[in-house]
Formats: sequence, C-alpha cells, structure tokens
Amino acid sequence: MKVSIVGLGLIGGSIARDLKSQINVTVYGVDNNPDHAVQAMELGLVHEMKSLEEAIAESDVIVMAIPVNHIESILPSVLDQVDVHQTVIDVGSTKEKICAGVQSHVNRSRYVAAHPLAGTEYSGPTAAIPRLFVDKKNIICERDLSADDALEVALKIFRSMGMKTYFLNPGEHDKHLAYVSHLSHVSSFMLGLTVLDIEKDESQIFNLASTGFASTVRLAKSNPNTWAPIFEKNKEHLATALDSYINYLIKFKKAIEGNDESTSRELMQEANDIKRILN
Amino acid sequence: MKVSIVGLGLIGGSIARDLKSQINVTVYGVDNNPDHAVQAMELGLVHEMKSLEEAIAESDVIVMAIPVNHIESILPSVLDQVDVHQTVIDVGSTKEKICAGVQSHVNRSRYVAAHPLAGTEYSGPTAAIPRLFVDKKNIICERDLSADDALEVALKIFRSMGMKTYFLNPGEHDKHLAYVSHLSHVSSFMLGLTVLDIEKDESQIFNLASTGFASTVRLAKSNPNTWAPIFEKNKEHLATALDSYINYLIKFKKAIEGNDESTSRELMQEANDIKRILN
Repeated sequence: MKVSIVGLGLIGGSIARDLKSQINVTVYGVDNNPDHAVQAMELGLVHEMKSLEEAIAESDVIVMAIPVNHIESILPSVLDQVDVHQTVIDVGSTKEKICAGVQSHVNRSRYVAAHPLAGTEYSGPTAAIPRLFVDKKNIICERDLSADDALEVALKIFRSMGMKTYFLNPGEHDKHLAYVSHLSHVSSFMLGLTVLDIEKDESQIFNLASTGFASTVRLAKSNPNTWAPIFEKNKEHLATALDSYINYLIKFKKAIEGNDESTSRELMQEANDIKRILN
Repeated sequence: MKVSIVGLGLIGGSIARDLKSQINVTVYGVDNNPDHAVQAMELGLVHEMKSLEEAIAESDVIVMAIPVNHIESILPSVLDQVDVHQTVIDVGSTKEKICAGVQSHVNRSRYVAAHPLAGTEYSGPTAAIPRLFVDKKNIICERDLSADDALEVALKIFRSMGMKTYFLNPGEHDKHLAYVSHLSHVSSFMLGLTVLDIEKDESQIFNLASTGFASTVRLAKSNPNTWAPIFEKNKEHLATALDSYINYLIKFKKAIEGNDESTSRELMQEANDIKRILN
C-alpha cells in the first residue's frame, strides 16, 4: 500500500513513522516547508518526498495532516484528483466545516473524516514519535458518506497504529472537543501568559514551579499555527465553554475575596467529581 | 533522632516514610483523624502514633504538616512546649501569616518556616509515597529568626530527603507561590467544574478526554481541605493573579469571536515563551 502524508508535523510525522515501520507500506511525504521536508527525510519518517500532485497521483491513500484551515481549503481539489480506488483521510481537530465543505463533492465517498485523539505540546517533524497513537481513541465522522471500502481502509490504518475508532457526527464532535480539549488549550495558553506577565522575576518561575504548574501550563507550549485555526473553526462552542469558565473563575475569586470559604470549598468539592469520570 | 510528624497526609506521610527508612530515626505520628491514624500504622509510615502533647514532649523535631489554618492556630502553643534542644518545622504552602503569628514568640528561634515544593493531586496517608521530594526544591523563610542549630537540623532533614533549599522572605514566597502554584490550582479546579457543568454527556468526557485534558485538569482532584485555607491565607496575591488570568481569557475570547486571528495568534506566541523558562 502506498500512503502519502500531507504535512509532516507532530501528527502527520508520527503517522508516517508508524506506517513506515509496517511491512508493505510505502510512505510518501508532502510538506511545503522546505526545512520540514529535509528533516522528515533525515529522520527517516518517509521513504520519499513528493509534490502534492505527484503524491495524489501515485498513492492508494492520502492523509491530510495540515492545519484545519488548510485542510478545508485544499480538500476539495484533492478529491477532484482521486479515483474510486483511492482514499483520502483528514486528521484535523475540527470536523464540522471541513465536512460541510465537501458534503456534495462528486467524490465525497472517497473521503473519511477522522480525528485521532493524541498529541503532545511539541510540533514539527522532530516532534514525531513512534507509537503515539497506541491505546488512544480515534473519531470518524459521517461514516455513512464514506464508501465501505474507503472506511475499511481508514479503520485498518488506525487499528494498525493501535487505535480504537468511535463514530460521532461533526457537530457533536466539535462541541465535545471544544469542552474537553480546546478549552484546556486556551486555559493553559492564558495561564502561561498570565504568569509571564505578572511574575516580574522570571527566575522564580523556574525556581518555584512544581509539577503542578508544569502540568497545567504544558499545553501553552503548543504551536499557534495549529491552534489558531482550530479555535477559529470552533469558535461558537469554544466561546460557550470560555463563558462558563470565566464565570466560574469570577465566582471563585469573589468567594475567596469575601472570605466565603464554604462557597470556595463547595466549588472545589464539585470539581473533585472529575475523579469519578477520569480515574 | 526522634521526629514527630503532625498530620499524616500526602506531605506529612511522605516525609514520615522517607525519614523512617533512615538509620537511627524514630518517627512518631500525630493525627486527629482516627482513620488516618490507623492507616498510617498499617502502611508503616510511622513507628508509633502519639497524642500531640506526648509527641512534643518526646521528640527532637516536630514537623507540622496539617492545613495552613491549623498550623497558624496551633504553632504558638507547640512552641510554648518546646525547649532549646528541640526544633519545630512547618511545611505549609503559605508562609506570611504563619510566620507573623509567631514573630515575637519567646521560642521563635526553635522554629523553621519551610515549604517543600512537592506533591501530587492525591491526599491522605494512602497518598504518601517514597522519595516524593527527591530533586525537588525546598523554601525556608526568615532563616535569621531560626537558631543556627535549628536551621541546621531542618536543612539536614530536607537534604536527606533529596531536596535543595532556597531562602525567601515570607511575603515574596507567598506572592510567587500565588503565581506559579495557587493560580494553577484554581485554573484546574474551575476547568474541571466547567466541563462537568457544560458537558451534559458525561460519557464523552471519558471517551474524548486526551492527555491534554488530563494534564490541565489533574489538580482539580486535589483536596479542598488542604486548598481552601491556602487560598484564604493568600487571597490578596491570588486575587491579583486571577484578575490578570480572567482578563487574558476575556481578551482571547473576544479575539476568537471577532475573527481577530492576529491577536489570538500573538497571545499564543507570547505564551509559548514559557518554553524558554521551563525547558
């Protein structure tokens, strides 16, 4: 099987790495950043770099792993170029607008809308790590709009990387992801920014930061080029989540300023309930 | 050396565990929660449980590892009961009010105000883990108000657990900790609460939560009995930090709602600077 990975960053690079380690898979890379293209070859992520047009022409499967705004822009033209033996998969973190953009495309059935739920705070080809997806979950949207064989190819690929696939519609996907992923990223970015702003003695961040700070601020290291388009594409759901988050923070601040320890304690006890769900 | 640990939770229990593993250290435990007292013995955290009065009478060193409001209440009477051969150390997460409360105590010199920067989101004796403090930092405040021998005993204890000690005044300590620790806890508690509130389909939290969510919400599992008093004792600095955090969140929300991607991107790029300091 010949697979092209378009975009060799954290996610695309890690997919390339996993697939290239499998027997009988040839992995082509496409990346319009020349430095990333060189790195991808040096790191051995792919067998060969190609132009997008070559890659589409020569592959059984094309995996789109570029920022979601770029997926949305070029997916229609990628689908223009494929035939009934080829499968196009995107792995973007938002699904509603991407799916809507190709809903009535003549080759819609060759496309599988996916979102493997995995990642780290690092980016670029050097962030690609083996087995990133093992025991993680994958979401596929609009399964009924994909041809059976295209869906089967996608499931086989995600299964071979160690993932289990669940199905959601694009709207539900984007809403839930705003709550359990995109909000976390904003909370972490703004936490990093706040501490950099108010802590005038930077050395104290380094000296006093414990594992708790490191854990909450970790996602603030994430790539703005990846996340700005995700937030933009999912802004309605994310704004709802942020409104609620900001209101709770204001309520909590009032409680501690007003010595209202019963309220602050109660809010924390309610938050503790997250244990039940995550443990 | 005979050491009493008052409060056998995560921190006190972990200190007890480390000290008990050393040659020639006898560890007494004090805990007014009968379940915790039983657990501490069953887990082998201490050699023997004692009443607070017995523990003070029979120990070379008394370590106070109870919530900061309780440390503040009982530290004066503990100091009333010690003589010039004994050392009292507290390990609370705030220092200003605790230090102020014993500033002019006749036995102030027997007291060392400490804060070992380590922990997890779990609590109680079962959360006590060996070597929790290895390669972590310890803060001591008002070193000049402690007798040389008392300070030396404290430094020896923290060093034996693998910690390096730094010195800060109580006001600076509380300010910096509000920024790099207490704010993180509030951000995480409120994030957990928000997601529990707006995500009507709880199973999706479990299904879709990735390592990013787990990392930002981890501290929301922390014990409200520990944290409510910390927030109360450090409310001025924490309120400053929360004001700034809330303002950044509002600014970011406005940027994404207004399709102002250059602002959202710029804010994320500034936040990325945390890499430089933490890596």
